[in-house]
Amino acid sequence: MTRIKAGVLGATGYTGAETVRLLAAHPDVDLAFATARTDAGRSLRDLHPGAPDVPLRRLEDIELAAVDVLFLCLPHGAAQEATRQGLEAGCVVIDLSADHRLHDPAAYERWYGAPHGSPDLLGEAVYGLTEWRRDRIRAARLIGNPGCYPTSILLALAPLLGAGRLRDTTIIADSKSGASGAGRTASVPLLFSEVNENLRPYNVGHVHRHVAEIEQELEALGGAKGVVFSPHLVPITRGIVSTIYIQPYPPSDIRTIYETAYSSEPFVEVLPEGQTATIAHTVRSNRCAISLHEVAERDTLIVVSTIDNLLKGAAGQAVQNMNVRFGLDERAGL
Amino acid sequence: MTRIKAGVLGATGYTGAETVRLLAAHPDVDLAFATARTDAGRSLRDLHPGAPDVPLRRLEDIELAAVDVLFLCLPHGAAQEATRQGLEAGCVVIDLSADHRLHDPAAYERWYGAPHGSPDLLGEAVYGLTEWRRDRIRAARLIGNPGCYPTSILLALAPLLGAGRLRDTTIIADSKSGASGAGRTASVPLLFSEVNENLRPYNVGHVHRHVAEIEQELEALGGAKGVVFSPHLVPITRGIVSTIYIQPYPPSDIRTIYETAYSSEPFVEVLPEGQTATIAHTVRSNRCAISLHEVAERDTLIVVSTIDNLLKGAAGQAVQNMNVRFGLDERAGL
Amino acid sequence: MTRIKAGVLGATGYTGAETVRLLAAHPDVDLAFATARTDAGRSLRDLHPGAPDVPLRRLEDIELAAVDVLFLCLPHGAAQEATRQGLEAGCVVIDLSADHRLHDPAAYERWYGAPHGSPDLLGEAVYGLTEWRRDRIRAARLIGNPGCYPTSILLALAPLLGAGRLRDTTIIADSKSGASGAGRTASVPLLFSEVNENLRPYNVGHVHRHVAEIEQELEALGGAKGVVFSPHLVPITRGIVSTIYIQPYPPSDIRTIYETAYSSEPFVEVLPEGQTATIAHTVRSNRCAISLHEVAERDTLIVVSTIDNLLKGAAGQAVQNMNVRFGLDERAGL
Amino acid sequence: MTRIKAGVLGATGYTGAETVRLLAAHPDVDLAFATARTDAGRSLRDLHPGAPDVPLRRLEDIELAAVDVLFLCLPHGAAQEATRQGLEAGCVVIDLSADHRLHDPAAYERWYGAPHGSPDLLGEAVYGLTEWRRDRIRAARLIGNPGCYPTSILLALAPLLGAGRLRDTTIIADSKSGASGAGRTASVPLLFSEVNENLRPYNVGHVHRHVAEIEQELEALGGAKGVVFSPHLVPITRGIVSTIYIQPYPPSDIRTIYETAYSSEPFVEVLPEGQTATIAHTVRSNRCAISLHEVAERDTLIVVSTIDNLLKGAAGQAVQNMNVRFGLDERAGL
Repeated sequence: MTRIKAGVLGATGYTGAETVRLLAAHPDVDLAFATARTDAGRSLRDLHPGAPDVPLRRLEDIELAAVDVLFLCLPHGAAQEATRQGLEAGCVVIDLSADHRLHDPAAYERWYGAPHGSPDLLGEAVYGLTEWRRDRIRAARLIGNPGCYPTSILLALAPLLGAGRLRDTTIIADSKSGASGAGRTASVPLLFSEVNENLRPYNVGHVHRHVAEIEQELEALGGAKGVVFSPHLVPITRGIVSTIYIQPYPPSDIRTIYETAYSSEPFVEVLPEGQTATIAHTVRSNRCAISLHEVAERDTLIVVSTIDNLLKGAAGQAVQNMNVRFGLDERAGL
Repeated sequence: MTRIKAGVLGATGYTGAETVRLLAAHPDVDLAFATARTDAGRSLRDLHPGAPDVPLRRLEDIELAAVDVLFLCLPHGAAQEATRQGLEAGCVVIDLSADHRLHDPAAYERWYGAPHGSPDLLGEAVYGLTEWRRDRIRAARLIGNPGCYPTSILLALAPLLGAGRLRDTTIIADSKSGASGAGRTASVPLLFSEVNENLRPYNVGHVHRHVAEIEQELEALGGAKGVVFSPHLVPITRGIVSTIYIQPYPPSDIRTIYETAYSSEPFVEVLPEGQTATIAHTVRSNRCAISLHEVAERDTLIVVSTIDNLLKGAAGQAVQNMNVRFGLDERAGL
Repeated sequence: MTRIKAGVLGATGYTGAETVRLLAAHPDVDLAFATARTDAGRSLRDLHPGAPDVPLRRLEDIELAAVDVLFLCLPHGAAQEATRQGLEAGCVVIDLSADHRLHDPAAYERWYGAPHGSPDLLGEAVYGLTEWRRDRIRAARLIGNPGCYPTSILLALAPLLGAGRLRDTTIIADSKSGASGAGRTASVPLLFSEVNENLRPYNVGHVHRHVAEIEQELEALGGAKGVVFSPHLVPITRGIVSTIYIQPYPPSDIRTIYETAYSSEPFVEVLPEGQTATIAHTVRSNRCAISLHEVAERDTLIVVSTIDNLLKGAAGQAVQNMNVRFGLDERAGL
Repeated sequence: MTRIKAGVLGATGYTGAETVRLLAAHPDVDLAFATARTDAGRSLRDLHPGAPDVPLRRLEDIELAAVDVLFLCLPHGAAQEATRQGLEAGCVVIDLSADHRLHDPAAYERWYGAPHGSPDLLGEAVYGLTEWRRDRIRAARLIGNPGCYPTSILLALAPLLGAGRLRDTTIIADSKSGASGAGRTASVPLLFSEVNENLRPYNVGHVHRHVAEIEQELEALGGAKGVVFSPHLVPITRGIVSTIYIQPYPPSDIRTIYETAYSSEPFVEVLPEGQTATIAHTVRSNRCAISLHEVAERDTLIVVSTIDNLLKGAAGQAVQNMNVRFGLDERAGL
């Protein structure tokens, strides 16, 4: 099999380092380069002691055309120019930033505070929720890799959405995330002494960027009335739990719908009745664990979904998307 | 002012040790005794290195009649006999176990799996949610100290319940608790290596003991249709966050209702608009912090409430109840 | 008794906030002001949710002469000018920075990289290791409050130093500290995701600032050959454990020497034989716990010492020093 | 290449589960069985949510002769009978318990409180510190897999021991370990609420089992006068840091000695000057990271060594030993 040549732009954050780690160990991939701005010239291992010993190069010194696939682990905004350059150089671009998740340029401008530089690409980009977009991913030039919170929520709802069961429901998603989801940027609220022994709800119920991304995809997957989304920062490094409340209880056969949807998926596990998904089910894996909790007496269905925010919620799903795009075993390197 | 003589039965668990700590430092209280079973003869400080140096005595060796108030930090079931003895000895009994929270003997038997030994006392016991029961507490012989989860949820809802705004609402309460809430009993699921870096929803949506306690009091405070309650174990030692979802949005003036209810309360703080309650607001204090989040676009009100599970959720509220009962400054020793 | 008026410069860091917390609750103190630079105009509680609701003022807007005692919680370097101003205004100055710990101006310049602005004050400043300097503290205008690591090590060694037992010994101090000791400044290495699940030795064995401070005081307390000091950052918020190795084993009666030295000290506890000092013994208290471990078969004495770095290692000892200086009960407010 | 058939006795503890995880993913191994006592009949994944879905069988139901290599993850004492049975069945036995680490039956009885059931095997067993025993491991029937603390200390000292530099030195080893090293047994001192926000030195300086193991191997590797060993429990799940003090400073060329010893080792990394080994360098890997800190001014050498206690300190080294024993690539599956 032909080997895939891959490059990573922005390798020093948590997502970037995880992407490099996966690609460096991937059996079918040659990692051609990884870039950094201020840390160019050092090894990734100097910044992340457990990471592979990969040299960090300046963006100016690499040739995009040398790779088949380009992973962008840049801040939103910065990924737009890099996307254009990557596409021009003939690369498949997998953008892990938020720059190519929303399809509507007006929505992008509203939620990200600046007009998008390539509005045409917003229409072309495929939203890379792998399990539900394989056909489009196989043909994509540009994949907008989903956010970690949306991944945990959408995988938990997609079967019901597809069955048309949520069209009149305002979904409540109470999500809890480890601190690596907030990135590797110096900031007082993310200091150990601020996060440890604390638990911090934030943007409680706000209608904002993540909600826009989630609601766009709720619609695409079958339709719901909307989502109320409350993220919480918890003192763990990795992992997301989304506890999702659906009222009224959607009609019967819920478990069958989920098991049918996911029975042959290598990375989504619907837990048997009586078990509850926890961080421990999925941390340091590309898996999503889903448990179903029917509260008939209160006319409510609860779905709990957990992922590792850096893997299925970012780098892992990006590599999974690459595997699909290039016809590799979808599980390769994961 | 006359000093109060107090005793603690069952001082070695987290709640018991915290109760002893508060009473030993209370300006108006003399701690007469603290008991333990297997650890009698040792100092409390041998078990809890930061605790006061209080000798642990055998239940057989103490005289209940020597104290004015008896705090029961025993497992449910075991508190019933001690309650009877304490009342006979003329003590005011503050029961921190679950044995005197439910008023209905049939409900007790259903949720705790055995008939209650003194069903008559269930009717007499005052549910000690201090801010909402002061009049009855002042005259009580027996106070059933509320559970930690119910305290966090009921304080967050009482103003709306009292205003009659929740009668048709099924409330969703997504609660996150530190591990001390599960007690100081050897058990594999509570080992550091099991709890750390994990986040574990449990009893998701189950209608069980806590729900029975919450719904009894929702009714007493003004009425609601019911509650869907999902607790989560998070890797912190102390603290509870309850994120509470109310759909549809109850009619207007929400903030005014809360501020009116709590403006003169020393231990309940309604945070200003734009702030969100976190564990850091209340940990190691007897306070409850409440923040209000109106999500008009999705027809939802979210109330976030935080307490320290061992203080306002247990020992602190117990001492607050003692202060009310004996006419002390309600803040004394807290 | 006359009440003491106190002011705090630099209230927003962990040490500053803890100093404000202690002073605001101190029975004999009126807190006149607390200052901040960028956060002036806000309440301390906005930055530290559990802190008292104290307004943060600009340095330019306060009058130093209005207070009896001034606590400096400023970065080293910045405390020198404030010290001069405080002394001129007639205040007693308690400097929690490192600016007045070393007595030798040349040493200060060597270890802090700039000449000291008031070298004469270095000679005057009293090193505020309370238990061993009470006489001088009672008469001091300027107290250099000890560093947290030096406090934990010096309290553990002072009895032996005073007995002349360590003059030929190079002491090994292996210290472990929680992250709050590194301050509340945005920095990637102090992010939760970097500190959590990690344990980081740093400056291992380096002869640097802390060593200069420790060795100055080893000499003053009785003399030792030197110290090898290795700090480690551990994933806890508060607390220091110093495990101190002394080879060869100093002659007999070790326990008697310690018990004699500390038997009447309210804040230093020599644990009984068979017990070991842990963080839990002293966290959130002004205490120091010391345990002695004689390893005769290997000709070694080990002393373990623990403190809370923000209390006995900073704000607590500062308040203790104020109590001594102003003739208050040494335990007041602690 | 012939595939290796492997079995695991005692799969439910942290070490057992990690051994199963490694073997189940090993490219050259077929995992024939994994046993449990009380949990037989369940899947390993039920106990460890992230573990592979391997059925747990009763010891009575498996046939030892069906495997080439048997991993014993049993408590000490219990491994002796299983070792005899495994050897009789023709298996290579890799014992991860402490039962075959000491070579002297009298020493075993002294430190483990009971005579050894097969004293002859103590002489035959090879101490499996892979990097220093490859020749003997290649021919071994029975490998006593080293303890986690000894592994971290011995790898850090072996080069100097081999060079004869430590014969007159009493080494000080200050080790810090995560909680998984204490095993997966219900116990109050290992509860989350006891370990979290605490740091607990224990057995400080005691001459006990681990010291006996370490000193036996210090002697075998070249000789030292003895070791003073102080373990500390820290609130992390996995990882050990050993900070090792050597006085007086052993003669020159230290770095060359280490680099020569380890330059071609796949799993031992001597960090460049100026870097310090941390948990993050080795956690979730089979690596050992070593950093050298020469404190000439105080006549001291400090060596810092870190490993993952469950991998290089247990299951990883066991698999590495299997790889060596069966002529596989030493890195396979690690």
